[in-house]
Amino acid sequence: MDARLQKQLEFIREIDKVKSVFRKTWLLDQSRYENDAEHAWHLAVLAAVLEEYAETPMDTARVIRMVLIHDLVEIDAGDVMIYAEADRAGQEEKELAAAERIFALLPDDQARDFRALWDEFEARRTPEAIFARGLDRFAPILHNFHTRGRAWREHGVTAEQVRRINQPIKDASAALWQVASDWIDQAVDNGWLIGP
Amino acid sequence: MDARLQKQLEFIREIDKVKSVFRKTWLLDQSRYENDAEHAWHLAVLAAVLEEYAETPMDTARVIRMVLIHDLVEIDAGDVMIYAEADRAGQEEKELAAAERIFALLPDDQARDFRALWDEFEARRTPEAIFARGLDRFAPILHNFHTRGRAWREHGVTAEQVRRINQPIKDASAALWQVASDWIDQAVDNGWLIGP
Repeated sequence: MDARLQKQLEFIREIDKVKSVFRKTWLLDQSRYENDAEHAWHLAVLAAVLEEYAETPMDTARVIRMVLIHDLVEIDAGDVMIYAEADRAGQEEKELAAAERIFALLPDDQARDFRALWDEFEARRTPEAIFARGLDRFAPILHNFHTRGRAWREHGVTAEQVRRINQPIKDASAALWQVASDWIDQAVDNGWLIGP
Repeated sequence: MDARLQKQLEFIREIDKVKSVFRKTWLLDQSRYENDAEHAWHLAVLAAVLEEYAETPMDTARVIRMVLIHDLVEIDAGDVMIYAEADRAGQEEKELAAAERIFALLPDDQARDFRALWDEFEARRTPEAIFARGLDRFAPILHNFHTRGRAWREHGVTAEQVRRINQPIKDASAALWQVASDWIDQAVDNGWLIGP
């Protein structure tokens, strides 16, 4: 087999592992935690459905490619809950090392392209990265709100944390931030999230 | 909340269910079967990585959108293994009914667009649909070959079935069909697939 295709297939096999990286987000039916592959898939569909709410005109196809690969680094670095602020120390270095290893499995030109897309997501400066990051924060709030705050309750998360840490949603879309804010307020009222 | 956004969020919640539709494909680590959301995610990345092998020039962004939503109908219709040829009777009608229900959750314009994309995938006539369908057939062969034919062995699948049923790979890409053919031959030699 051609060396180029062989590298591409090796990458495709390697990323199968992200299906076994579980996040601290319950599926809506509360049967289990969601994994990174499912999460990336859901974000890609969110991008297609919610593109009209982006603050800045952007290329949705690029957002979709970005969210599809944004968590591949967790194959090596693992998932750390966004509210586990103390545990996140060192996570950035681990993710950088993972990006070095995983994207390099691809042929050079694709390794550069995929890595650039991941770097763009991490840097959060382009309209596409800002929207992708906003969706990445919006989805877990949707899941938490519709599971009576299950993961929030399990991990003692406060409304102050949820509002502060999820500001990227506001940068991505005022409309989605309004929805998220309403859910957070209702969650506090319902005792699913530590208020005020 | 705005009625349009409410519909979009209802669709987004509904499709969470596809994470619980399990296929007859083992993850590469053989820990469990793969579900439809993970499968759709993997196909989307395959489209991005393998686009250069398409027989006909095509719009990869459109292929990606297509594979992301191609199995949503299985929320209602369930997954039937492609080699369970007798069990597939009636499956098409079930999938059509599911498409009617699920895409209609979206606002009318998006319902039409998503449904058109799904219809296009099913019709297998455009370059994008032909490539998407080819990837949909290629991925399970990759998984089977790299798990010593586990699902093939469990379901008594024959090489004749695998070669015949996966012809869409050939229409999508001669290069990928060559890889798949080699894997099928090797699987027969290794006793992972009933030959010749």
